[in-house]
Amino acid sequence: MSITKNEIKDLRFLHSKRGRDDQGLFMIEGPKLIEEAIRSKAPIKCIYSVDEWSNWKGGFKLLSSKELRQVSTLKTPNKAIATVEYKPKVFSQFSNHKLVLALDRINDPGNLGTILRIADWFGINQIICSPESVEYSNSKVVQASMGAIFRVDVFQMDLTDSISKFKEQFPNAAVLAADMAGDSIHELDLPENSMLIMGSESHGIDPNLLKSITKRVHIPGDGKAESLNVGVATGIICSSIMK
Amino acid sequence: MSITKNEIKDLRFLHSKRGRDDQGLFMIEGPKLIEEAIRSKAPIKCIYSVDEWSNWKGGFKLLSSKELRQVSTLKTPNKAIATVEYKPKVFSQFSNHKLVLALDRINDPGNLGTILRIADWFGINQIICSPESVEYSNSKVVQASMGAIFRVDVFQMDLTDSISKFKEQFPNAAVLAADMAGDSIHELDLPENSMLIMGSESHGIDPNLLKSITKRVHIPGDGKAESLNVGVATGIICSSIMK
Repeated sequence: MSITKNEIKDLRFLHSKRGRDDQGLFMIEGPKLIEEAIRSKAPIKCIYSVDEWSNWKGGFKLLSSKELRQVSTLKTPNKAIATVEYKPKVFSQFSNHKLVLALDRINDPGNLGTILRIADWFGINQIICSPESVEYSNSKVVQASMGAIFRVDVFQMDLTDSISKFKEQFPNAAVLAADMAGDSIHELDLPENSMLIMGSESHGIDPNLLKSITKRVHIPGDGKAESLNVGVATGIICSSIMK
Repeated sequence: MSITKNEIKDLRFLHSKRGRDDQGLFMIEGPKLIEEAIRSKAPIKCIYSVDEWSNWKGGFKLLSSKELRQVSTLKTPNKAIATVEYKPKVFSQFSNHKLVLALDRINDPGNLGTILRIADWFGINQIICSPESVEYSNSKVVQASMGAIFRVDVFQMDLTDSISKFKEQFPNAAVLAADMAGDSIHELDLPENSMLIMGSESHGIDPNLLKSITKRVHIPGDGKAESLNVGVATGIICSSIMK
């Protein structure tokens, strides 16, 4: 079966947050990410590809290269796209994992995608994003996450509330915030459960949030850079905590 | 003085590698990076700005917002650009720093810029790039480096030669390569001088290079991600080595 004009219109509408929320779908692009979605048993609704797709028994449509260019969000579309069902995840409680990530106003989709991938590397399975953060259904987040989006749970929630809930669930937990004036990450002595709050490079962490943390942490460096990219900093701190 | 039509043409030519090599200039954008260049005493040739520039006694031209859009490489140009003189750096010897970075075919300019910034954070002052890597004068590298480009020396050289030279200069040195099958970065016992080789996510490290290394290193992780972004991985390994 081939794609219809109406489907092209619907797919283009998925480029916007409103379109994704209305249809309850987001888009993934390229054979590699689609294979990853199949492997991860993500709720794929339909694959649209310029070639047949051998190992897939679900919804499938052929489209031309021209049609692919019309529906893709990429400058150089990559053979196929697919739609994946999504609805905002409902938070019930924190998992009993060593580390939960909390992101304060991370607006850059590439950075959020990279942080999802970091979480997926270290086996961190929950990320809390402040309501002002870029939504995780954004196609640049999805693409940069390299499949982590199918394995890591992302919740958009108020961070002050999240910290309270976390402390309630784990009374001995540490709530860490990345901050230039903090303790070295190489000298941490942490309890069983920790939450790590990362702020954006432009806004830092909301001062109101800093009132509820238990410790500031800092990545020692001898150089002259003012800061690190937030994805890189998250990776370094997670690696230190998870070792 | 205002910008001329010929200057606009020359500035647009700087968007290409050939233009930068021909003119011996690269372009930096936005007041923050220009201030950083002034502070770092970078060889600025001329600042082109929509407003006057108070603390600068060198070459200066006014331009309109329309002209700025014509010369900028950014979708949303940011008030000013400047040209900075550059010529390929001539390598003489390795500095006696704990760590030198060597990058094998890193093609993504954002990744190279991020790695420059990481080097600048940890005080690593030399980066060797294989000849096939993206050139560091590329405007996306320069912008992503956040000023590190003015402080870290980048050399484009054959990596096999570089490794030989490094071992000759520091006979006890370690030459490390990031590799899934390597030793944990948390259990390294390193000599005074090390070189760390990072490959691109798509190509990995050239197997010929791997013959001359002394140790493979690996970032332990319990999750399911296939890999980390190369900038993030570089940051994590550098942090472990430099601690």
